[in-house]
Amino acid sequence: MSGSIFGKNFQVSTWGESHGEALGVVIDGCPAGIEICENDIQKDLDLRKPGSNKFGTQRKESDTVHILSGVFEGKTTGTPISLIVYNQNQNSADYSNIMNVFRPGHADYTFNQKYGFRDYRGGGRSSGRETLCRVCAGAVAKKILSEIGISFLTYSKEIAGFKCQNIPSNRDEIFLDPLYMPDRQTSLKAAEYLKQCIKNNDSAGGIVECIIKNVPKGIGETVFDKIDSLLAKAIFSIGAVKGFEIGSGFSAAKLNGSQNNDEFININGNITKKTNNSGGILGGMSDGDDIIFRAAFKPTPSIFHTQNTVDINGNVTKIEIKGRHDPIIVPRAVIVVEAMAAITITDLLFNNMFSKIDNIKKFYS
Amino acid sequence: MSGSIFGKNFQVSTWGESHGEALGVVIDGCPAGIEICENDIQKDLDLRKPGSNKFGTQRKESDTVHILSGVFEGKTTGTPISLIVYNQNQNSADYSNIMNVFRPGHADYTFNQKYGFRDYRGGGRSSGRETLCRVCAGAVAKKILSEIGISFLTYSKEIAGFKCQNIPSNRDEIFLDPLYMPDRQTSLKAAEYLKQCIKNNDSAGGIVECIIKNVPKGIGETVFDKIDSLLAKAIFSIGAVKGFEIGSGFSAAKLNGSQNNDEFININGNITKKTNNSGGILGGMSDGDDIIFRAAFKPTPSIFHTQNTVDINGNVTKIEIKGRHDPIIVPRAVIVVEAMAAITITDLLFNNMFSKIDNIKKFYS
Amino acid sequence: MSGSIFGKNFQVSTWGESHGEALGVVIDGCPAGIEICENDIQKDLDLRKPGSNKFGTQRKESDTVHILSGVFEGKTTGTPISLIVYNQNQNSADYSNIMNVFRPGHADYTFNQKYGFRDYRGGGRSSGRETLCRVCAGAVAKKILSEIGISFLTYSKEIAGFKCQNIPSNRDEIFLDPLYMPDRQTSLKAAEYLKQCIKNNDSAGGIVECIIKNVPKGIGETVFDKIDSLLAKAIFSIGAVKGFEIGSGFSAAKLNGSQNNDEFININGNITKKTNNSGGILGGMSDGDDIIFRAAFKPTPSIFHTQNTVDINGNVTKIEIKGRHDPIIVPRAVIVVEAMAAITITDLLFNNMFSKIDNIKKFYS
Amino acid sequence: MSGSIFGKNFQVSTWGESHGEALGVVIDGCPAGIEICENDIQKDLDLRKPGSNKFGTQRKESDTVHILSGVFEGKTTGTPISLIVYNQNQNSADYSNIMNVFRPGHADYTFNQKYGFRDYRGGGRSSGRETLCRVCAGAVAKKILSEIGISFLTYSKEIAGFKCQNIPSNRDEIFLDPLYMPDRQTSLKAAEYLKQCIKNNDSAGGIVECIIKNVPKGIGETVFDKIDSLLAKAIFSIGAVKGFEIGSGFSAAKLNGSQNNDEFININGNITKKTNNSGGILGGMSDGDDIIFRAAFKPTPSIFHTQNTVDINGNVTKIEIKGRHDPIIVPRAVIVVEAMAAITITDLLFNNMFSKIDNIKKFYS
Repeated sequence: MSGSIFGKNFQVSTWGESHGEALGVVIDGCPAGIEICENDIQKDLDLRKPGSNKFGTQRKESDTVHILSGVFEGKTTGTPISLIVYNQNQNSADYSNIMNVFRPGHADYTFNQKYGFRDYRGGGRSSGRETLCRVCAGAVAKKILSEIGISFLTYSKEIAGFKCQNIPSNRDEIFLDPLYMPDRQTSLKAAEYLKQCIKNNDSAGGIVECIIKNVPKGIGETVFDKIDSLLAKAIFSIGAVKGFEIGSGFSAAKLNGSQNNDEFININGNITKKTNNSGGILGGMSDGDDIIFRAAFKPTPSIFHTQNTVDINGNVTKIEIKGRHDPIIVPRAVIVVEAMAAITITDLLFNNMFSKIDNIKKFYS
Repeated sequence: MSGSIFGKNFQVSTWGESHGEALGVVIDGCPAGIEICENDIQKDLDLRKPGSNKFGTQRKESDTVHILSGVFEGKTTGTPISLIVYNQNQNSADYSNIMNVFRPGHADYTFNQKYGFRDYRGGGRSSGRETLCRVCAGAVAKKILSEIGISFLTYSKEIAGFKCQNIPSNRDEIFLDPLYMPDRQTSLKAAEYLKQCIKNNDSAGGIVECIIKNVPKGIGETVFDKIDSLLAKAIFSIGAVKGFEIGSGFSAAKLNGSQNNDEFININGNITKKTNNSGGILGGMSDGDDIIFRAAFKPTPSIFHTQNTVDINGNVTKIEIKGRHDPIIVPRAVIVVEAMAAITITDLLFNNMFSKIDNIKKFYS
Repeated sequence: MSGSIFGKNFQVSTWGESHGEALGVVIDGCPAGIEICENDIQKDLDLRKPGSNKFGTQRKESDTVHILSGVFEGKTTGTPISLIVYNQNQNSADYSNIMNVFRPGHADYTFNQKYGFRDYRGGGRSSGRETLCRVCAGAVAKKILSEIGISFLTYSKEIAGFKCQNIPSNRDEIFLDPLYMPDRQTSLKAAEYLKQCIKNNDSAGGIVECIIKNVPKGIGETVFDKIDSLLAKAIFSIGAVKGFEIGSGFSAAKLNGSQNNDEFININGNITKKTNNSGGILGGMSDGDDIIFRAAFKPTPSIFHTQNTVDINGNVTKIEIKGRHDPIIVPRAVIVVEAMAAITITDLLFNNMFSKIDNIKKFYS
Repeated sequence: MSGSIFGKNFQVSTWGESHGEALGVVIDGCPAGIEICENDIQKDLDLRKPGSNKFGTQRKESDTVHILSGVFEGKTTGTPISLIVYNQNQNSADYSNIMNVFRPGHADYTFNQKYGFRDYRGGGRSSGRETLCRVCAGAVAKKILSEIGISFLTYSKEIAGFKCQNIPSNRDEIFLDPLYMPDRQTSLKAAEYLKQCIKNNDSAGGIVECIIKNVPKGIGETVFDKIDSLLAKAIFSIGAVKGFEIGSGFSAAKLNGSQNNDEFININGNITKKTNNSGGILGGMSDGDDIIFRAAFKPTPSIFHTQNTVDINGNVTKIEIKGRHDPIIVPRAVIVVEAMAAITITDLLFNNMFSKIDNIKKFYS
């Protein structure tokens, strides 16, 4: 119970089930005076939309966002922003066969254990559809961040083992590719593999990388609310994430200190680092470099293979999953990862404003 | 500023600097009636103690914990437990040479950016010494968890690339080894390598694995406060962690769904899984299997190599770090990782008690 | 900014403006398995509805609640409950004359000071209409509380100085009276006075009393999250509240200890108190007696008198308020006070479940 | 359990029992760069000290505060400030007679109900001694507030019905009076009455008024985290408080809107109000006027009268309280009320800094 509110000062509260009447998000803590319209949000939602490429689910929905509150005459008012997306294409019948059976790799079993029963239609609350609420809130967060020059490059770093060879330099390089991988050659190979996956009734995993540019220095709190700590929480709250790393990440475990330490240098009066193994974070605070992290996604658990499982009475049985399912989560997850990162950075950005008494005196003078 | 309080219902608040008068922790939310004494905590602290093996720092301190409040006649009272460890061996002179210079890989630079200045003595608040407070709170959390049968096996999974070949079956296998690695042969090789590191004025990284046994099913909240999400936050809040993964982790990104999905099976009436790629967590809730996660630690940034850096005025300079520093963080971090995991599970365990109205009715009947 | 989320474990997040498209509330932390339908909520909403008596505003709206999520097959699922009330009768033109002028006793001026501008239509976010979201959440909270026998008697204790002479023994005594005052004679006198108020273009204040029955003993946390402390916060968050007192309240300041102390007595094996000056709370925890508190409401600030004020440029001017306004807030506030009390008690009820290790052991055995 | 942490961004965590080894407070969220020393805190502690006047308890302790962390070279570092006061004069024997008996008006009974047992020595955690931690934190908060010109005048408004006839214009007028009442004549009468109380083995109640000057406009959040809402919570968390009111308070319930509304006026370009019935708060936000509130304290429950009560087995018995007890709480509570108000205002002051996007852009430009 509970657990659907994220953040401390920029608070995001999501609600809604896959096959309910609607899903939505309430953002409490958005500053006043930001020009925002539905289209600012819709364009991110569209990047996540099922069916935006042939590897997305066949569920065709417009997923149209409506602003219900918090915006007046085109500007945020400082009061809660309520965003809603009505469900339009839910077909509960698709899921009747899983009503009493636990799908491997899904939350069916644990939901039943915790709550005694579950909304089995499309995974209910644990459906990937919940992430569209995060994308909405992330779009608002990015509007705030863009006002101070912070921007994002988030992309498919690896799909089914096919590794992107480029670092993107702009968003078009990412989003013009059907797999959101800024390396057409590798993307084509991955696409070929995914076609095979579909044919085999199977699915594949992948890795998303997120690069955050121009984060002011000193963002993040020491000890528990480190910027990496909160990013880890944010990203791991996305279903199917099984790993998270920052900068040199897991490879750092095999390096020596003399290899992994980043020397400080002075470039035209700006203190920076020669390398960026830190991933832009030192001691839990931004060091001025790009923040770089990666998230590993498991393969879609909904596969069309017949699988062995048990039912709610503990009887051994088999399950054949039907319905609409991506063979891969990653491309659609790119904008979700970006959204969660944006929400996290925004929250910490506010917190940082009262770190020094001089800031407070200047503000209230 | 802020950020030194962890948890929602079991709240842990740490304070203190490396070279201050003392460090401590306040635990707000410990249930009443638990038998606890200083020795219950001290034995964990001793596992973290510098100098407990030859690869630990040479700083010799007793690190003795005192209970200041919250325990009456040997039992917790339900009110805040205040624990304190007085510093005894601080020698600030050791650090005078880094007062105005930024150590690579450390928080010196970001601290100065955020706060305008810093307590430079031994890293001040960003010192690894802060983690002894977490170990104290973790010991209390483990007392709670042990009451319902939850236990931990946490160990050095990999040191400088030397990978432990065994899964421990009890705590002795871990803690009788000087590197807390339950595989004497690999441990010896790793030890040999670390000696070389010291000779080379260098350091090494590693990986800690934590196995949590007997977590009741259904612990963890859907969406943002998933058990994996909060563990990720908890572990990433430990300095030097650069990666975190659960179950099949990063390797899941390369698997197919048919390989990564864990089939549900029925063993003598208990529903469980054939494999445990999930790492004991499905949909953010415990599934009854062992919870298994790994944390990657970067090599100790304090190396005795001369390093290039800049000073607080931006002048290019060199730094020679002195003082007492481990060539590796991992073995001493083992008990810190365990502590943070215990604190996280405890918090979620409480939260889960009001997930169903039947629980509440039964409780208040 | 922020501040629209209430509670720690039972979290209520309201959104919406007086003249926006809709208002709503998201409840995160409602246990699974509670039978609930829209009518359970609607009946409370109807008690607050404008126009339910002749002293309510003339705004005629159905104020119909819709459940958008969190309920499946008639039962709560343990996931967020989203409730929405669409606005139907907003007429922004009514407010054009106050767009640039600050209404005395309203939040217009402070809103402008804080946010730089405001949604001036009907008070925007600071409108009394926001309280319908609280009533919705309160109805859900009361469903939970009723499962363990907790009930409420909330009523108009005083209107314009006319003081209710009875203590109600059931809800009908309260809600069958047009002013929600369980004392027909006084109610008639008060009604007469209010008619005079309307004629005089003026308004009146009053006092609401809330009696909470059957709260288990020991609810409430020591020190900051005392039950009285959180009730005070909850009630003072309702617009127009200027005073709050528990048990003997302000009159206790004039009593001696020998008069104000409640002797403990034993009635057939149940420890209780001879008197209830404590108002059912000792040391911030429920003592088993009725919890009794009172809230003082100022007179409606929207009066039809011509008033002196200034405009947003600081120019001295006069204002004539138009539109639909109650001459008294109290009767409609009764159900709002009850809702906030129910939300508060529910939150603390959960918290109390892990106060003793024995509870936890029993739960997880 | 839990409930000993106050605040969101300026977080105060108190610990310690009346007769434990020490009491203390951890402040997480104090900005860096504030000059502070132990004496800044001690002078407030001394105003609360038992025995500072002849109506205080006879317990003679120095109550000396020590700074354990968070201050480096005389300045706050931005990391947690840990403050400790060692107990020196505890005499547990005094309380042996109440070990198994419930004192009327105290938390003994509810503590036992909640936790199963209690630290009976001097009330343990529910002792008034806990408030010295709040005074310490309040002194730090007032240092912050003083940097932007916010100041406090808190005083005994009424003692045993004797009402102060003056409004203080400076702190000396308050604290030079033995009862902290800036009206020597009334103070003398009250003192006379208190002497009589002591003779009668009885106690008296009173009212504290707090005036907060120069709070910037717009502080406080709409809806739940209103400035009055959080002040109510803060003040009601002090033991023995039974009532709280702001501005015209309870008397507003008897006024007409035309009497209670404060006209806005323009004084030399500054928008202000002709009267201050609002108590400096409109719509939950500061309006620039003095914030004025009052708290009603019940008479000290520890009286030397023989009282009827029951013991922990439910047997009817009599109790004679011994030990050291004030005949009145109010004068010593003055500085506690001020402390809680300062902590609350500080917290909201930080929150307000990110209410507008323009503030954020300016800050990070």
